[in-house]
Amino acid sequence: MQTARASASFDTFELTCLLWGGEDNVRQRSAAFKRVEKLLGTHDTTKLPRCYADTDRESLYEQGLHMGKVILEDMMRYNHDVFVSITPRYNLINASPFGHQGILFEPAIEHNGTEEQKAQWLPLAKSGKILGTYAQTELGHGSFVRGVETTATFDAEMDEFVIHSPTVSSTKFWPAGLGFSTTHGVVMAKLLVDGKDLGPHLFVMQLRCVEDGRPMPGIKMGDIGLKMGYNEADNGFASFNYVRIPRTQMLMAHSQLSSSGVYTKTPLRQKLSYSVMLLVRSKMAGVFTAQLAQAVTIATRYSVVREQGLGPQDAFANEASIMRYKSQHFRLLSLIAKSYAMHFASLACEDEYHMLREMQAHDDHDALPPVHALTAGMKAYVTGEAADGGEEARKLCGGHGYMNISGLPDILGALAGGATFEGENYVLWQQVGRYLLKQVDALQQGEAVDAQVQYLTSTGDLSTPCLASTSQFLDVSVQLSIYRHRAHCLVLKAHRCVRSSRKTPADAWNEHMMTIISASRAHMEYLVLESFVAVLARDMSPSLHAVLTHLCSLFALSTIINPRSVDALAFVETTNTKQGYLSTGQLDDIRALVNDLLEQLLPEAVALTDAWGFSDASLCSAIGMFDGNVYENVMKWVEQLPMNKRGGVPPKWGKYVDPILKGKNIRAKL
Amino acid sequence: MQTARASASFDTFELTCLLWGGEDNVRQRSAAFKRVEKLLGTHDTTKLPRCYADTDRESLYEQGLHMGKVILEDMMRYNHDVFVSITPRYNLINASPFGHQGILFEPAIEHNGTEEQKAQWLPLAKSGKILGTYAQTELGHGSFVRGVETTATFDAEMDEFVIHSPTVSSTKFWPAGLGFSTTHGVVMAKLLVDGKDLGPHLFVMQLRCVEDGRPMPGIKMGDIGLKMGYNEADNGFASFNYVRIPRTQMLMAHSQLSSSGVYTKTPLRQKLSYSVMLLVRSKMAGVFTAQLAQAVTIATRYSVVREQGLGPQDAFANEASIMRYKSQHFRLLSLIAKSYAMHFASLACEDEYHMLREMQAHDDHDALPPVHALTAGMKAYVTGEAADGGEEARKLCGGHGYMNISGLPDILGALAGGATFEGENYVLWQQVGRYLLKQVDALQQGEAVDAQVQYLTSTGDLSTPCLASTSQFLDVSVQLSIYRHRAHCLVLKAHRCVRSSRKTPADAWNEHMMTIISASRAHMEYLVLESFVAVLARDMSPSLHAVLTHLCSLFALSTIINPRSVDALAFVETTNTKQGYLSTGQLDDIRALVNDLLEQLLPEAVALTDAWGFSDASLCSAIGMFDGNVYENVMKWVEQLPMNKRGGVPPKWGKYVDPILKGKNIRAKL
Repeated sequence: MQTARASASFDTFELTCLLWGGEDNVRQRSAAFKRVEKLLGTHDTTKLPRCYADTDRESLYEQGLHMGKVILEDMMRYNHDVFVSITPRYNLINASPFGHQGILFEPAIEHNGTEEQKAQWLPLAKSGKILGTYAQTELGHGSFVRGVETTATFDAEMDEFVIHSPTVSSTKFWPAGLGFSTTHGVVMAKLLVDGKDLGPHLFVMQLRCVEDGRPMPGIKMGDIGLKMGYNEADNGFASFNYVRIPRTQMLMAHSQLSSSGVYTKTPLRQKLSYSVMLLVRSKMAGVFTAQLAQAVTIATRYSVVREQGLGPQDAFANEASIMRYKSQHFRLLSLIAKSYAMHFASLACEDEYHMLREMQAHDDHDALPPVHALTAGMKAYVTGEAADGGEEARKLCGGHGYMNISGLPDILGALAGGATFEGENYVLWQQVGRYLLKQVDALQQGEAVDAQVQYLTSTGDLSTPCLASTSQFLDVSVQLSIYRHRAHCLVLKAHRCVRSSRKTPADAWNEHMMTIISASRAHMEYLVLESFVAVLARDMSPSLHAVLTHLCSLFALSTIINPRSVDALAFVETTNTKQGYLSTGQLDDIRALVNDLLEQLLPEAVALTDAWGFSDASLCSAIGMFDGNVYENVMKWVEQLPMNKRGGVPPKWGKYVDPILKGKNIRAKL
Repeated sequence: MQTARASASFDTFELTCLLWGGEDNVRQRSAAFKRVEKLLGTHDTTKLPRCYADTDRESLYEQGLHMGKVILEDMMRYNHDVFVSITPRYNLINASPFGHQGILFEPAIEHNGTEEQKAQWLPLAKSGKILGTYAQTELGHGSFVRGVETTATFDAEMDEFVIHSPTVSSTKFWPAGLGFSTTHGVVMAKLLVDGKDLGPHLFVMQLRCVEDGRPMPGIKMGDIGLKMGYNEADNGFASFNYVRIPRTQMLMAHSQLSSSGVYTKTPLRQKLSYSVMLLVRSKMAGVFTAQLAQAVTIATRYSVVREQGLGPQDAFANEASIMRYKSQHFRLLSLIAKSYAMHFASLACEDEYHMLREMQAHDDHDALPPVHALTAGMKAYVTGEAADGGEEARKLCGGHGYMNISGLPDILGALAGGATFEGENYVLWQQVGRYLLKQVDALQQGEAVDAQVQYLTSTGDLSTPCLASTSQFLDVSVQLSIYRHRAHCLVLKAHRCVRSSRKTPADAWNEHMMTIISASRAHMEYLVLESFVAVLARDMSPSLHAVLTHLCSLFALSTIINPRSVDALAFVETTNTKQGYLSTGQLDDIRALVNDLLEQLLPEAVALTDAWGFSDASLCSAIGMFDGNVYENVMKWVEQLPMNKRGGVPPKWGKYVDPILKGKNIRAKL
C-alpha cells in the first residue's frame, strides 16, 4: 500500500483542496468530522462499528438518533452546515431521523412562508426547539403532486383547516423522521374551499407532543420498516383523521386564503413552488458523487492488496495483485475518472442554482427553465451512474465486497435510493427532454437559446463522419465535439419524431419516449464533460494538471468504448443512414488510447482516491482502510460480532440441528 | 389486475408446464412448496413475514435454520430434490445453513471419493446423520485453488494428516453453514509429504461434536456477519491449529497416498477435479434466472396497479397506470423476454452437463472443454444479466421497491451474490475466452471444432454490412445471423490480437483482456438466442407459439438497441474499418419493430409472469401479490412491524430527542 501510494506524481493535498473549495474548507470539514467521530466513538477503527453489531430495526434507528443528535448539536454549536445535505458514512445528517430539518423543512418555510410565518417558525427550527419533516408523497402518489389525495378543507366558521386522509392510498408515506422523531411537518394537501379543489398547498402541522413525543390527536404514525439503505432514519407513514389546524398555518407567500375564504395567488406561484425541489436536486449530484467516490476508494485500496492467480508479467509462484489485471484497471480507473467528472459538474450545477436564487431575489425568473432542466438532469445522470458505479466497485472487491463490514452494501443501499427518490429518474429525464424540445422550438422560431444548448445553433453538417484519428482523440476539443455531435443528433431526432407525429402530443411523446430520454442523457453527458474540461483551465501545479488532463481524457474516451456505457450506440449513429459517425477503426484507435491512459494513471490510483480525504471512520470498511491491512482488519471485526462471542457454541442447536441429526421427524416416520 | 390478467391470448398453465418440464413436475413442485410454506407459516400472507419483523443477525440465522430443517426433512420424507440447488424465496435450501449438503458436500465425496469412502460417508449425509459444508475459499484466496494456504501435512508415524492454518489469510472463509450449523466439511488443503508440496487436495473433516455442536479441538469457527443476501445462512470462517485426522479421510478417487507415504495420481486427476464445480455452475444459471423472474413478476404486477401522472391517451383527471408509459413497457417486457431466453438456455446447459456426465461414466472426456466453457459462460452471462435486471425491476417499482417488504431488496441481495461467488464473472469470461481462442487455433490447423462454435467455420465475408431492412428483422434467421456475426468478428479479433502480439502470452492476454471478454459475452449471447429459437420448434398450441415467437424477437431485437445493453457497439462493428454492420437506418428500423412488439406483448405481460407459477409466499412481497391489492397489503404488513405496536409512542425519545428540543447540550453552552 505504501508503494502504491508513493507512486503518485502529484501532491494529494493540493487536489483535496481543489475538490473541496480550498484549504480552509478542507480543514473546517475535517475538524467537524473529527469532533463528531470522536463523540460517536467511530474514530477507533479497531472496534467493530455498532452498525455491524446491532442490526435489528430498532437499534439501527437508535444509532441514527445518536448520529443525528451529535451532528445537529455540532452544527448548532459551531454554526456550520457541513452535515446538512449529506448522507451516511461520508455524509451524515440527511440519513438521520432529523435529516429533513435543514434540507426540506426549513427551506419549505423559507421559500413558501410569509415574513410573519418565517419569523414564527424558523427560529424555533434553527434552535432545535422543534424538529421538522416534509410530507408530500403518499402511499399511492409520488412526484406527481397533483395526484395528492390528502385534503385540507377550510372551515370558515372556526377559521381552521381540517386535514384528512380519505383513503388508504392517501396515507402520507416515506418522509424521513415521520415515523417517530419529528415534532412538526410541512404537509402537502389539496386545498378545498367551499367544495372547490384549489390544488395542492403546504401546511405547517404539529405532529407530536414536544414533551413526550406522542402523536397529536387524530394522527396515526409509524415506521415503514427496513429499506435498502438509510435505515438510520425512520421513514414513516401518517394518516390524518379530521385534524384541525389554524388557518394561519397554510404557507401563504405565493397564495393566500383570507379568513372570509377569499383565495388569491401570485402569478408566479407555479414557478416559485419549484424552488425547494430545485435546492434539493442541486445538492443531490454532489452527495451521490461523494458516495460513489467512497465506494471507489474502498475498491482501489482493496485491489492493491488482494492477490489472485498468477497474473501477467511474471509466472512466479506468488499470486499477483488484482490491480495488475486489465479488467480491474479499466473498471476502476474509469470509475475514478467518472467520479471526478461528476464532482466537478455537481459544483457547476450548484453554482447555477445559486445564481438563479440571486436573480430570483430580484424577481428575475428567466433562468428557471435552464436551471430546472440542469438540476433534474444532473440528479438523474449522477444518481444513475453512481448506483451503477457503486455496484461495479463492489464487484471489483469480489466476495469480500459482499460482506456488510466491507462498507459497500450500505453505500450501495444509499446509492440505490438516489435513482428513485426526489424525482424518479425516468420522470426527470423527460423533464430535461421537454426543455430541450422547447429550446429547439425557440431556435426554429428564430429566438435565442440558453447557454447550455448553444451547440444546437451550430450549422455544421451532422452527417459528416468524425474526421479524427489516433492521438487526435486526446485533444479535448475533439472529445467535446464527439459528445456535442451525439447530443445534437439525438435532440434533433427526438424533436422531429415528436413534433412531426400525427398522434396526439401525449401519445407522440409516449411513443418516442426512449429517444427523448436518450437525447436528454446525451445532453447531460456533454455538460458533464464540459465541466471537467473547464476545471483544467484553472490554476494548479503542472504535475496535478497533467494527471487531471489524463483523467479527463480517460473519462471522455472510456465512456465511448466502455461495454457497459449507456447509449453507446449513439456515439456511432448520425443523421446519415448509411455511414456511421465513428468507424470500427476509430473505435479501435480510442481503445488503444484508453489502454495507454490506463497505464499512465495506474500509479496515481491510490492517491486519486486518497485525495477525497475520507476518514476511515466515514468509510466504515474493514477492507478499505488507509493502512491496507485488509485481512487483519476483517478478522479483528469479525471476531467482535455478537454471535462470535460465545466461544463457538452454536445458537439454537438443540431446537433445529439436533433433531435433524437424530432423525426425530423423519426416520421415525419412514 | 383481473383485466390485465384476462387480456392474455394464451393458456398460462400450458406455458407453466413448458417452463418446468411437464404437468407432473409442475404439480409435484407446487405440492412441495405448499407443504413447506404451511409448516413455515408463510402461506398466510395476511401476516407480516418473520424476515421483516425479526431482523437482527441471530434471528435471520434462526429463520434459516427453521427453513433448512423443514426443507431437508421434506426432501427426505418425500424423497425429492425440488429444493436442492435453489435459493431464497422461490428457491430455498441453498440459502439455508444446510445448503452445502446436497449441492457441494455430497457431490464432492461422490466425485472424489473411493467406493469405500462413498460407502462410509454418503449414507450418513443422505440420512441427515451428519451435515456437511465445502470449505475451499480462504480469507486471502478465492477461486485460484493453487493459492490455498491451509496445509495438510502427512505424519507417516501416526498415519494421520495434520491440518493447519499457518496465516491469518489462510483462514477458511465464506462456506455456508461453517459458522455454526454443520458437523463435517470437505476441506481443501495443500498436501505436504516429506516437505514436498503436492498441491491442493480434499479432506473430510469432522468440525463439530454431533452431540452439542461445540467445535472439535483445535478448530476456531464463527459467523462472518451480515451480507447483502443469503443471511439465512451462517457463512463462516474456520482456522485450524494442528488438527489431526486419519489418512483415510483424504478423498482418494483420483490421487492416493499410501500409509508409507507413496503418492500416486490418475492421469485424469486435473480434469476430474472440475466436475463438482461444473455441477454447481450448470445449475446456477437456472437458479438466478428464476430469481430474476421473481423480481420481474413483482414489478409487472406493481406496474399494473401503480398510477402516476396523467399519461398518454387521455387527459382526464385520473392518473394513469404506469404500465401505460413506454419507458415502463420497454424495460419490463425486455426483462420478461430476457428471463425466458435465459431460462431456456439454462435448461439446455443442464442437458449438456448431464450428457457430459454420461460420457464421463464411460471414460469419454471429450466434451469437457466445451461443457466447461458453456457452464462458465452461462453462469457469468446469467448472473450478470440477472443482477442488472433485478435492479432494473426494482427501479420499475419506484420508491416502494426500495422497502424490504417489497421483496425486491432481498432478491437483489441474492442476485448480487451470483456475479461473485462460484467463480468471479471476469475470471469466468476469460475461461470462455481461452476456450474460444483454442477453437480458432484448432480451426486454423485444419481440425474440427465443437458444435457450439460451428459459426467460426463460416467463410462468408464478415466485412459485408447486414442487408436486412424493416420487417426482415423479425425473421429469426436474420436475428441469429446478427448475433453470429458479432460473435464471429469479436472471437477472430481477440484471437488475432493475442496470437499476433509480440509480448509474452500472459502480457498479451492482459493487454487485450477487454476484447477477449467481449468476444466471450457475444458468443454466449448468441447461444442464448439460439436456445430460445430452438424452443419455438417444439410442440405447443398456436396461441402460445405466437406469443413466444414475439417474445423471442423482442429479446433478439431489444438487446441490440437497448440503451443499457452490454457491448451494444459490437453490433455495428465489423472487420470493415469504414462502414458499420448495422447502419443508423437499420437501427431505427429495429427500434420501430421493438415498439410494435411491445404493443403486441403488453396484454400478455401479467400472464407471462404468472406462468412462472410463483406462490405469494415465495415472492414474499407486499407489492407483488397475485391479487394486486398493493396498498392494502403494504399497510397490513407495515402495521404489524414490531416498532409500530406501541401505539405510536417513540422509542428512545427521552434519551435523544428530548435533549435536543430542550437544548440541553447546546443552548447552555452558547
